[in-house]
This record gives sequence, structure tokens and C-alpha cells, in this order.
Amino acid sequence: MSDYSLPFSLDHVDEILRRALAEDVGAGDVTTLALIPADQVGSAVAHSKEPGVLAGNAIAARVFTHLDSRVRTTKLLSDGALLAPGAGFLQIEGPLQAILTGERVALNFLRHLSGIATLTRDFVQAVAGTDAQIIDTRKTTPGLRLLEKYAVRVGGARNHRIGLFDGVLIKDNHIAACGSIASAVNSARSSVHHLIKIQIEAKTLEQVAEALEASADGILLDNMPPETMSAAVEMARDRAFTEASGGITLETVRAAARTGVNLISVGMLTHSAAALDISLDIKG
Amino acid sequence: MSDYSLPFSLDHVDEILRRALAEDVGAGDVTTLALIPADQVGSAVAHSKEPGVLAGNAIAARVFTHLDSRVRTTKLLSDGALLAPGAGFLQIEGPLQAILTGERVALNFLRHLSGIATLTRDFVQAVAGTDAQIIDTRKTTPGLRLLEKYAVRVGGARNHRIGLFDGVLIKDNHIAACGSIASAVNSARSSVHHLIKIQIEAKTLEQVAEALEASADGILLDNMPPETMSAAVEMARDRAFTEASGGITLETVRAAARTGVNLISVGMLTHSAAALDISLDIKG
Amino acid sequence: MSDYSLPFSLDHVDEILRRALAEDVGAGDVTTLALIPADQVGSAVAHSKEPGVLAGNAIAARVFTHLDSRVRTTKLLSDGALLAPGAGFLQIEGPLQAILTGERVALNFLRHLSGIATLTRDFVQAVAGTDAQIIDTRKTTPGLRLLEKYAVRVGGARNHRIGLFDGVLIKDNHIAACGSIASAVNSARSSVHHLIKIQIEAKTLEQVAEALEASADGILLDNMPPETMSAAVEMARDRAFTEASGGITLETVRAAARTGVNLISVGMLTHSAAALDISLDIKG
Amino acid sequence: MSDYSLPFSLDHVDEILRRALAEDVGAGDVTTLALIPADQVGSAVAHSKEPGVLAGNAIAARVFTHLDSRVRTTKLLSDGALLAPGAGFLQIEGPLQAILTGERVALNFLRHLSGIATLTRDFVQAVAGTDAQIIDTRKTTPGLRLLEKYAVRVGGARNHRIGLFDGVLIKDNHIAACGSIASAVNSARSSVHHLIKIQIEAKTLEQVAEALEASADGILLDNMPPETMSAAVEMARDRAFTEASGGITLETVRAAARTGVNLISVGMLTHSAAALDISLDIKG
Amino acid sequence: MSDYSLPFSLDHVDEILRRALAEDVGAGDVTTLALIPADQVGSAVAHSKEPGVLAGNAIAARVFTHLDSRVRTTKLLSDGALLAPGAGFLQIEGPLQAILTGERVALNFLRHLSGIATLTRDFVQAVAGTDAQIIDTRKTTPGLRLLEKYAVRVGGARNHRIGLFDGVLIKDNHIAACGSIASAVNSARSSVHHLIKIQIEAKTLEQVAEALEASADGILLDNMPPETMSAAVEMARDRAFTEASGGITLETVRAAARTGVNLISVGMLTHSAAALDISLDIKG
Amino acid sequence: MSDYSLPFSLDHVDEILRRALAEDVGAGDVTTLALIPADQVGSAVAHSKEPGVLAGNAIAARVFTHLDSRVRTTKLLSDGALLAPGAGFLQIEGPLQAILTGERVALNFLRHLSGIATLTRDFVQAVAGTDAQIIDTRKTTPGLRLLEKYAVRVGGARNHRIGLFDGVLIKDNHIAACGSIASAVNSARSSVHHLIKIQIEAKTLEQVAEALEASADGILLDNMPPETMSAAVEMARDRAFTEASGGITLETVRAAARTGVNLISVGMLTHSAAALDISLDIKG
Repeated sequence: MSDYSLPFSLDHVDEILRRALAEDVGAGDVTTLALIPADQVGSAVAHSKEPGVLAGNAIAARVFTHLDSRVRTTKLLSDGALLAPGAGFLQIEGPLQAILTGERVALNFLRHLSGIATLTRDFVQAVAGTDAQIIDTRKTTPGLRLLEKYAVRVGGARNHRIGLFDGVLIKDNHIAACGSIASAVNSARSSVHHLIKIQIEAKTLEQVAEALEASADGILLDNMPPETMSAAVEMARDRAFTEASGGITLETVRAAARTGVNLISVGMLTHSAAALDISLDIKG
Repeated sequence: MSDYSLPFSLDHVDEILRRALAEDVGAGDVTTLALIPADQVGSAVAHSKEPGVLAGNAIAARVFTHLDSRVRTTKLLSDGALLAPGAGFLQIEGPLQAILTGERVALNFLRHLSGIATLTRDFVQAVAGTDAQIIDTRKTTPGLRLLEKYAVRVGGARNHRIGLFDGVLIKDNHIAACGSIASAVNSARSSVHHLIKIQIEAKTLEQVAEALEASADGILLDNMPPETMSAAVEMARDRAFTEASGGITLETVRAAARTGVNLISVGMLTHSAAALDISLDIKG
Repeated sequence: MSDYSLPFSLDHVDEILRRALAEDVGAGDVTTLALIPADQVGSAVAHSKEPGVLAGNAIAARVFTHLDSRVRTTKLLSDGALLAPGAGFLQIEGPLQAILTGERVALNFLRHLSGIATLTRDFVQAVAGTDAQIIDTRKTTPGLRLLEKYAVRVGGARNHRIGLFDGVLIKDNHIAACGSIASAVNSARSSVHHLIKIQIEAKTLEQVAEALEASADGILLDNMPPETMSAAVEMARDRAFTEASGGITLETVRAAARTGVNLISVGMLTHSAAALDISLDIKG
Repeated sequence: MSDYSLPFSLDHVDEILRRALAEDVGAGDVTTLALIPADQVGSAVAHSKEPGVLAGNAIAARVFTHLDSRVRTTKLLSDGALLAPGAGFLQIEGPLQAILTGERVALNFLRHLSGIATLTRDFVQAVAGTDAQIIDTRKTTPGLRLLEKYAVRVGGARNHRIGLFDGVLIKDNHIAACGSIASAVNSARSSVHHLIKIQIEAKTLEQVAEALEASADGILLDNMPPETMSAAVEMARDRAFTEASGGITLETVRAAARTGVNLISVGMLTHSAAALDISLDIKG
Repeated sequence: MSDYSLPFSLDHVDEILRRALAEDVGAGDVTTLALIPADQVGSAVAHSKEPGVLAGNAIAARVFTHLDSRVRTTKLLSDGALLAPGAGFLQIEGPLQAILTGERVALNFLRHLSGIATLTRDFVQAVAGTDAQIIDTRKTTPGLRLLEKYAVRVGGARNHRIGLFDGVLIKDNHIAACGSIASAVNSARSSVHHLIKIQIEAKTLEQVAEALEASADGILLDNMPPETMSAAVEMARDRAFTEASGGITLETVRAAARTGVNLISVGMLTHSAAALDISLDIKG
Repeated sequence: MSDYSLPFSLDHVDEILRRALAEDVGAGDVTTLALIPADQVGSAVAHSKEPGVLAGNAIAARVFTHLDSRVRTTKLLSDGALLAPGAGFLQIEGPLQAILTGERVALNFLRHLSGIATLTRDFVQAVAGTDAQIIDTRKTTPGLRLLEKYAVRVGGARNHRIGLFDGVLIKDNHIAACGSIASAVNSARSSVHHLIKIQIEAKTLEQVAEALEASADGILLDNMPPETMSAAVEMARDRAFTEASGGITLETVRAAARTGVNLISVGMLTHSAAALDISLDIKG
């Protein structure tokens, strides 16, 4: 059973938790406050109703301890674990008010992040045996970028750049403003610091050639059919890394991988993953 | 072409925008800063590549004006409009830096919210001609509750309570802690204020009977097969409103509606809607 | 001795405490820092100089632990307790700097909230033996809404809606914009979710009749003389709840209660309650 | 008609407004959103139902423009003006939604601050003809310190120190920790910067003598009967300023003033002022 | 070995730490996360490579515990201690990830604040044996005012006013707007509270005379040559305190002190102190 | 006259301005409020008393417009301009209160950032004619990282990575934890995304050889004497970029540059630059 540490600051996680609880609890959980005595204790176990990959367990646990520091949580499984239907993966014990009030927010995190990890795992398995690596995109849910990119890693894929600040990706509008691929790459090289690589988008083999000529570090092959992509990959071999991009699905991903492309970015990992059906069994 | 005003404070929207931009832009859009002159202007038009319902147009527009107050935006369509593939619905003009830097964040809002509105519309149409109303749940993305519930309304459905603060929904754990349905309803009645109604979950017809006996305002019929649900609806007629809940899909929703139930809550509207494929055509 | 748990999130309380301490302590308590060694310990006991109802004890205690986590506090009485002059209700032990620096902020909370609870108790006692319930209004001090509404409950009364978000109250301007009471109630019914009740303001018996005709859930009887109010109450019996509102004082509240009205809202509970005279005995 | 500029940063005011609106409006003003079209305009005039001193007019106006930048406000009177019952002092024009949603928050500020200014004016008039100046205390409502101290100035009195950071006031616990009044004053002198004066509390004439001996800049005469206070004032003449403090009311303030004391601090200005009865006439 | 307690709220320090860590760590310390196992522990000792005065030790320690509450820190020396090159003053033990990630931020605080304390000590020693006191100015680094003024005190000097809120300092533009020094002092006296002193800037002996005539509490002698300053000091003796100001360096400070001036303010203490060369020895 | 656009979000700048103003103005500029009428207007011009490079002009201008939106500012010079003593570079017109209250904060930004730009320019000129580029470090003032790195660019140098999130720099502790340079580089390569380069610290030529063997993208040559550095540069030619680091001063920088090293990082650019002597001439 592997363990994935949370690779972002607790300040960041706590700010997200506070907002999530504020929007759900607001002026108070009027039902629970009316019906549950403050000193009543209970316990709960989280489990999935369908197979999938667990992600967000530490975040879900933190929801309850944030509500009441007396809550005790035990992770029965770690993020990345394969969930068998019905098998508990998180145990919560303490004041029943906190358990009931936090239930939905904790589940919303678990279901969303595990949904992403599960879909990611499917893509990773679809390219098993090839050299291609699945990566995510910046098509994430506003406010949850770091958590979603973490869930992608939990699912076995890797990340693309985190944001606009940690990588150069030159698109056609950038090129148009600079006049040519060569001048765009050169401008970028003379501006960004020495630890940032420069990738450029190409729609045609001509653009691939230009990008290689300009010594771009990598090329994003935008919406290319497999044969064109294969040709582009061949051209770039040993000169630049290649990334396949554009509407790739579970049906099409293996064909893309077989072109020899280094990276395959999949937007739907984060923008269209269905929630995993996780719920909480509570004992009052 | 109808117009949906934004029914939440701009303070709320702006805080969400600021966070979304901060996580994407962070220390700076290094590509755009390197390649696009600060005084270059451009324009862009947003359109969908697939049919759907537009939601989030005002929010997307605000992304760009937030980045640079000189940007001018024109809404060609309003939220709620049916999107024909390729037809532009938002025009943006101004500094090209702001357009390129804001593109992804604006699209992330548009695609997510329009995806919800589009799926909602499908559910609403699936029950057309019945008296049932589609409503959402609290199974929303952390931090985006109000925006997502707005997208549900744009899609033609209605909202369930917004959070734990504006409605009483008594679940089995609450009942267990109170000893009986009757005492749970009474405790709630004596605690919450006079403008809040009390709804209670029932899994069996016996529980429905108890809830009616206790004068609950409404009953959530949890995972009932259609025949049981019909019986429950019949029992509750003129005494309490009824809500069908539990794993309802586009395939099962019409059968639920035909039981005569008043409300059908659908979690997947907000937790599993796929993004609508919207993009931006930019002219530098 | 009863115990009232704090029915709002500690995030909310702590944000209020932080602001209160920031505005008082700011760049530093220059007197205490100059005169009290950092390692000197002391103790203090809070007591009231006049009879009243205690409210805010847990909040006051938290002021001191927020300033220095080494402070230990012991609640000798719980919120809702009747305070006998001179009897201590909160004991504080720890670094003297924290005790002296926090004294005024803690007392400001205690005096304000206990003042509200005490005045509320007076109103509640004034209607003892009738069926009327005393409730508060939205006439609260900006920033302290939840705390003040809590103090009202501590004093034995109940709350009206917490804000504009958890209840519909239709006023004359709303009616005017809709054309009629009937259309206003209908519009509200078709817009707000199913757990929110609809109350409407009526100044005359004609308006009461219209509101009942429109099936409003409740009616606010605005500034009606007792006889009119009695007639209105009679009309609404078994059809809608009634609330008396408008300049009600300790002198007039019993007459209002005797009309049989269900609820009596009293703005002065929160907008004009005098502070209770509470102070701290400190031992250095 | 005099004009009082707002002597605090708009950042500070806006943060208070945002919190006040957030706690009242929260997830949305469900009544107004349901009943008032977004494009309907209206107007309103604020007036007082009882005589008093206006305070907070600019803040109230800002509530509405904060909600909707299209609202236009006109101040018919300035803070400090004497309010005749019924005479309008603030006119608001623009989207009716913003006027109705902001009404209560704006009134809560106006009523609270004008209540303080009005009570302050009463105290100032009660000592007219003497040399005593009325000042406030730190017994303010948590979160509203600067606004309330502003209202005190509007009412014609002056401020005591704003917080613990801009003045030294040595109390008995401070003295006890230092061993003597002399050592306390000396310690303070050697610690605080050269633009801060040092005031010390004295309960007896012996302590007054000690404070003068220690060259304190000022003495707080704590709960002294008038004759003792007169003697203390005489002792301090030309050596230190004197402040009367402790439970002073409208009945006792003139006797205190006649002792020749320089300053009279009155806690009830801010902790127990009743709200002024101000309301809004709205035209839809 | 003396101990300086931190004379500002932990809320303030923690907010500064959070921002400092956010700007450095951002989306994650990618190097450390890639290379250091989450459960690996280590230790580190901070020491200076050059002689100086320690300031910021508690703040540096808090950086690490903020990152991971399992970190244990031991202060081997307290703020104010003279640092011998190579001698450790802070020991850190715990998860190696937190030590490596926090290293630079902790050092940035230590080096900056100790640099200020060290330069301050030099100035204090330069006037040893005179009656002049070295004080700082408002020429501080934006966002770090309280920490820098604390470092000045650690270095043995005293503070000028903390900001614009806790002292009156009338400059030539203020005088011009009032018409005369006398009217400026009088206006200030009638406006600020009784615990704030009034200081006024004078460039000539005529202005000194006017300031004394107006009973200013203190006079800032702006850029006066030593002889003029001596004359000014003589004029002000027993009537007002005097402060020398304007481009004073280590070379010129003693001449200024010998004029008998009470205070010498030195902007470079906070705006131009070089960082002290402090580093961390880490054992993995 | 070149123009440098502000390459960071206004949200970021405004948050820094708000904090800077809050710590200086706090509860109010008591001097200015007492002496300057709210409607008095004035003007001011900023100029330097010594030669240098201007940085922060737009930020300084924003201080005044933030305080009062009626202020008008005109930039006579742009960031990067060489300042001749006495020549004005920023003109401010509007309410005199805002000019006087904002003066010090605006100058604190200008003096600090221009001091960094000026020192940077000196370093850049010292290596003129060589191929070496001057870069900064993460030794910045907590809270001002982005502004200081901008000032470095204004001074003509380039940036190192902005924080721990946008580049891999492997230090000896990282290597120790991984066992070898090779395994450290490999671990980093398999973890960080494809747009991040990997740089590793080397103290000896053996370590340089190992780093090259491991295919590191770049090597930081730590505290190497010029001859060793020359040898390292020779080894790395065409295989990895090289960076000289460690206590480099204006005296030693040219010798380092002559080794052929690609980059020279200089910590003192940001941690020890003296403020540039800039002031404001105000006309009331």
C-alpha cells in the first residue's frame, strides 16, 4: 500500500477547505444543530460503491478535524489505492455534529478527486507498453488546480506545466505577433529564465520543421492525424520532445501513443471526469 | 433571447476570479510577457464547437476586464441561449496580452458552467409534460456552489436548498439521534426559524407515514422503486411535497416523474457534467 | 446550569476576534509591553456588577487563548446563566501580558452580548403565559449578526430569518413592483426553493385578506393597533402564521401578545440594548 | 451646514461594508431577486423619525454604490447636521434591486452611528460653559472602533486614544507589576517613543500625588466623588492633565465638569447608545 | 544572555510568514518534493559567517514549524546576542522536506533583520557617552515596518513613531497650509487626542523660536549644521525635546550627538542596512 | 526613453500597496487630518538627489491614486531611465491630503526598487563585453519578491528562477538524500514536468563531471576560484549551462565573467542594495 504525501502547503489546502465549508455551512447547519446534542459522539467509514482510484483522503479527513479538533481520523487506505466496492478507506470518530455537518463537503472532495484519478488510471492503462506518457492540461476547475493536478499524479499520469508561470508554450497567436516561429522562440529564450524550457505549437509538418530549426525544446502537435504525427515525431527525434494534443479520448489515445510521441495531454482528465460514487456510513 | 442577471454579489464573483487567475497566472504569464508587446491590441470571439446551453458569459467577460480595465466585451448571446456550433456569443477587444493571459481561465468557467446548463436542459426536457421539477443537490464542486447552482437555473431546473443553512433536511442519522421521526420533526420545528420548512428522508412507506403523521413539510423518497414511489406520492398528496432522490439518470428520470412526485433531485447535474467544448478565436 | 454550544464555525468567530484585536492592539499594547515582563503570570475573574443574563463567555475566553496559547480559561457559568452581581463566571490564568492586553476586547464582547441576552429575557418574561414568541430582526450591528442572534437565543427568544438568503419577506415595494399581492406571492413561490417559506407584509385587514387568498405562509402585521391585530390574527388562524412588528417596547409587548399573534419581532433587542456592566478582577 | 470628511481609509470602510453585506445578503436576496426585474429603477430618501445628529451618511451611500455601481447618491445633509423628523438627508437613485437589497445594511450603519452622535451631543451640551471636554473610551463594538470614534467626533466630543498602540494608560495592575507608580512611569518613559504621553490611573489623592511626583503627563481620576476630584484637579493644575472616569451619566456629568477636570470619558457613548430611528422611503 | 520577547501579535507575524512562503514555495518546492522522501528527518543549525547582532530568531524558527508542525526548534541564542562567526544560534530538527523548503525564507528574515540590528548597534556605539538617543524613521521596507522597528530596538536604539497614526509631526507643507507654525500647532492640539505629542520640523533658528513660542512638544532639526543645531538645542532646553534629522551617517552621527540634541533619527538603519551573512548547515 | 510594463497582476501590486498603507496610515494620518482641509489641492514632483536607475514609478503613482481616486499622476520618465539629480520623473496632482499621506510609502517603494535597479546596472556594466549574464537570487525581502525581481530586470540583468516552483536546483543536501548526483538528477527528471530544467550544484570538478555524466541541464559552480571555474566551464561547454555563485561583488564579478561562465548570480542585488536618495517636492 503506497502513500502519497500532500505536495502542497497546508495553508493552501486549509484556505480551500474554509471556503468549501463556508459556502455549505454558512450561518449554520440548522438541521444538525437542532437535532444532535453537542456532546454526542459517533463514527463513520467512507467507502466507494464502484471500483476506482482513491484520491483526496487526507483532504477529506482534514474537513472533519477542521470542524472540530476533537475528531480522530484513520486512513485505512492511502491515495492511489484501488478501491474495491464497499471496502472502507477512511474512518472518522468524534462529535456527531462535526461528522454530519462535514459529510457532504468531505464527499465532494473525495468523489471529485477520485473521479479524476480513476479516469487518469484508465488513460494510463490504455497506453501501457508504449513510451508515451499521459499528462494533464490547464483545463481545470477554477480554484482547484493544484488539487486536480495532484489527483492526476495519483492516477499515475504526470503533469503539464502548472500554470502560465512555469513553462513557455507558444501558440499561434504568439507566433503571429512575433512574425515567425524563429523570432518567437528567440524572444522567449531571451526573456524567460534559464530553467524554463520552450515548447511551441505546430499544426503542420512545416511548422514542426521551423520549430526544430529554431531549436525549440519541445513541440506540441496540435490535432494531427496519427500518420502526420508519426512523421512529426520522426522529424523531432533527438532534437525536441513531442506532445500530442487535441480531443484525445480513451478510444483514440492508444493510436496516438503508437506514433512514438513522448507526451499525450488529455484535457478531459480534469474537465470532464465523472465523480466516483463514494459515500459515508455513519453510526450515531 | 432572454437575459439572466447574475444573482450573486460581484464581491463573490470577483473573489472567485481572483483565485482562478492567481492559480493560473501566478508570478506571470511568461510566454505572453515575452512575446506580446504591452500596447498590441487584438480581438477574440468565443463560440461552442457543439450544441449546448450557454452559462457563465458575464463571468467569462469579467475575467478579461479584471486583467485589464481597457478590455471591452460584448455579449452576443445571454446565458440560457442555445448555442449553435460555431456561432460566436462573446466578443472581446483590447490589449492582446490580457486576451491571451485570460483565455484559459475564461474558457474554464464557460465550459464548466455551460456543461452543467446543457446537462440540466437534457433532464428538464426528459420530464417535459409531467408535473415533476428537476432540482439540484449539494453535490457541487468545492468553492463553486453558487455558480453551479446558477448554471442549473440557467439550464431550466430549480435549486434545492443552497447549503445547510437555508433548509432542514432530516436524515436517518438525525432521526436515530432523536429516537423517532416525530421527535426529530418536533425538535427541528422548535429550533429553526419560522421561514424554514422541514423535509425528512424516508426509505419505506412506513417512514412516509410517520413523517406525514409528524406534519413534516416535505418528504425525500430515498432510492425508492417507481411503484413504491407512486404509493408514497399518493399518501403525501395535499399533506407534504415529495422529492425523488438517489442515482437518477437520464434513462430513469422520466419513470420517476410519472409517479407524480413533485421534485426530482439529480446530483450528476453538478458533479458529473462533462465540459461543453467552447473555444476562443483570437485575432492578434 | 445549562450549556449553550456555540452554533457557528470557529472560523467565523476567530475572524471576528482577529479583527477586534487588530483594531485595539494594532502595532502593540505599548503600556503592557513596557511594564509587564513577558514571563509574569497572573489570573483574573470576570463578573457582572448588575443582574443579567450571561452571553459570550466562550468568545471572551477565546480572546485570551488567541493572544497566548498558554492561557488557561475555566467557565464557572455557561451562557444563559443568570448573573448575580459579583459572582465570577470566567476564570483566566496565564501570562499577565495576555490578560491585560485582552481585557478590553473580551469585556466588549461580554458586555454587548450579555446586554442583548438580558434585554431579550425581559421581553420573554413580559409575554410569559401567552402563546406569542419573541423574535429578533435584521436590525443588528454590522459584522456581528450571528453573534447577536445567538445572544437573542441565549436570552430565551428565537430568531427571525438570519439574512436575506434564508427566507422570503415581501414588503410593499416588492408588491408594488409586481402589481399585486397575489402575483408577488406567486412569483416568489416559483423562484425560491421548496424549503423556504413566504411571508408578506400587511398594513391593513384588506391586505391580510389578499395575502391569505394568495396562500402566503405567513403575514407580518405592520404597526397595527391591538384591535386590528386581533382581527388579523383571527382571519389568519389555521391559514398562515402571524408576526407583529413595528416599534414594540417592553410597555407594549404584552398587549401585542394578547392578540394571539404567533410572533413578535423586536428590533431593539439588537439595535438598542445597553451593555451589561461586566468587569474583570485581575491579580498580577 | 458643515461637512465632515471621512477620516479613515476607504479600504477600511469597504472591508466593513463587504462583511456587513456578506452576512446579510449571503447567497442572495431571494425575495428581491424573485420579485424585482434587474432593469427596474427606483429612488429612495433616508430620513429620521426623531430628532438627532446625523452620522454615517457617506457610509450608507457607499452601501448602495458597492452593490451596484450604477446607483447615484446625493447627500442632502452632511454628517453632524441636526436632523428634523421627516427631513430627508440622503437620496438614492438607480436599480431597485440594489436599493431594496442594501436598505437594511445602510440603515443599520446610519441608525447605529447617528445614535452615538446624538447621545454624544447630549453629553457635550450637558457640560456647555465649563472647560471640560467629553471624550470616548475603548468600550466600543468589536470591529467598528474607528467608525464609532468618528461618530463621537461628529457629535462634538473628542477621542481618547484609539487603541492600545497610541497612548500609555497605566492601570493598577501595571503599577503592581512594577512595584510603584514612580517605577511604572519611568519604565514607560524609557520604552515608548517620544511622541506618546503617559497617563496613569489614580483612585486616591495619595496616588495623584505620587503620579505628579513621577511627572506623569496626565492622571485618570477613577470613580472619584466630586469633592475628591476637585482636590485632585487642584493638585494637578499646571502639572498634568486630568480625566474623570467611571460610570458617568447625563445626570452626573455636569457635576464632574464643574470640578475643573480637563476631560470626562464616557463609555456609554459607544457601548449603550440607542439607535436613532431612521428609515428609507422607497419609490419603485 | 538577554531575551527579547516578540512585541507584536502572532497573527501579524504569521500573515507575513504565509506571504513569504507563498511567494517562494508557490505551487510547490519541486526539487525537494522530487528528491526527499516525506518521512526523512534531518537537522540544521543556523550561524553567522560574520560578527553581528542577532534579530529574528523566533521568526526564523516559526518558518519551519509553520511548514510542518513536527519540526522542533531550539534557540541557542536570543535576539540581541552578539554573533561570533560560526557559532550556532538556532537548531532545527524534523522532516528534512520542511527544513530544505523553509531554508531560504528563514534566512531571508534572519539576514535582513540581523543586518538592521547590527548597523543599529554601530550607530548606538558611535554616540556612546553622549545623551543622544538613536531612533529610526518611517523609511522602512513596505510590509515589514513592525519587524524592522523591532530589529532597531534589538540593536539598542529606540523607535520614532510607528506610523502616521501615533504621533504628530508637522512638516513645512502642513505649516504652509495653516499659514503659520503657531496656527499649525494649535490646530493639531485641538484635533488629536490628549496622549499624542506634537513635534514640528524647523530648518532655521527662526522656525525653532516660533515652534517654542507655539509650545510644540518637540522640534525636528532638519539638516542643520552642528553649530546651528547647538544653538537650536540651547534655545529648546527645558521647553521642548529636539531631534536631529537628515542624512546622518556613521561618520557624522557623533558630531550631531555632541550638540546635546535629544534624539538622532537615522533612515539608513532600515532602508540601507546590508544583510548579515547568515547561513544554515543542514544534515540530511 | 524605454517603457517597462508592469509584468505582474494589479491584484498583486494592490495587495502590497494596501498592506504598506495600512501599516503606515493605520487608524489615520493624524497630522494631515488635523491640518489640511479635505478640499485643498496641491501638486508634487518626485526626483532623485543622486544618479541612478528609476524603478517603481508606476507603483509609486498608484499609491496616491489608491488613497484618492481624484489624484492625477504623470510619469515624466519610465522605469529604466537614468536619473539625473534633480530632474523630476513623476508628477502628482490632486487633494493635498492624499499627497502628504502617501508621500512616505511611495518614496519607500521608489527608493528601494531604484536602489536595486541602480546596483544591478553597476554589475551589468562591470561585465560589459563578456558573454556572462548577471542574474539575481532568491535572497529577496519577504513579501516583495516579484517587485524586486522586476527591479533587477529594469536594471538590465535577468532573473534566476522566481521561486521553488519554477525550476529545479539540486543542492548537496538533496544529493546526499538520493545517494548520488546521478540518482538525484534522474529522480528529478522523472518527477518534474517537461518544461522545467534541472540544475545541480557542484563544488568540485569531480562533481561537475558527475553532473555532466548525469545529463543535468545546468551546473551551479559554488564558490569556485576563477581557475577552477574556467576548467569547469570548459568541461561543460556544449553540454550544460554554467552559473557562478557565491559572494560575488563588484570587485570580483569581472574575473568571474572572464571564465566564460554563462550566468553570474548576485545575491546582494536584492538583499543589500542601498536605497536611492529620492524625494518629493510638494506644493500645497
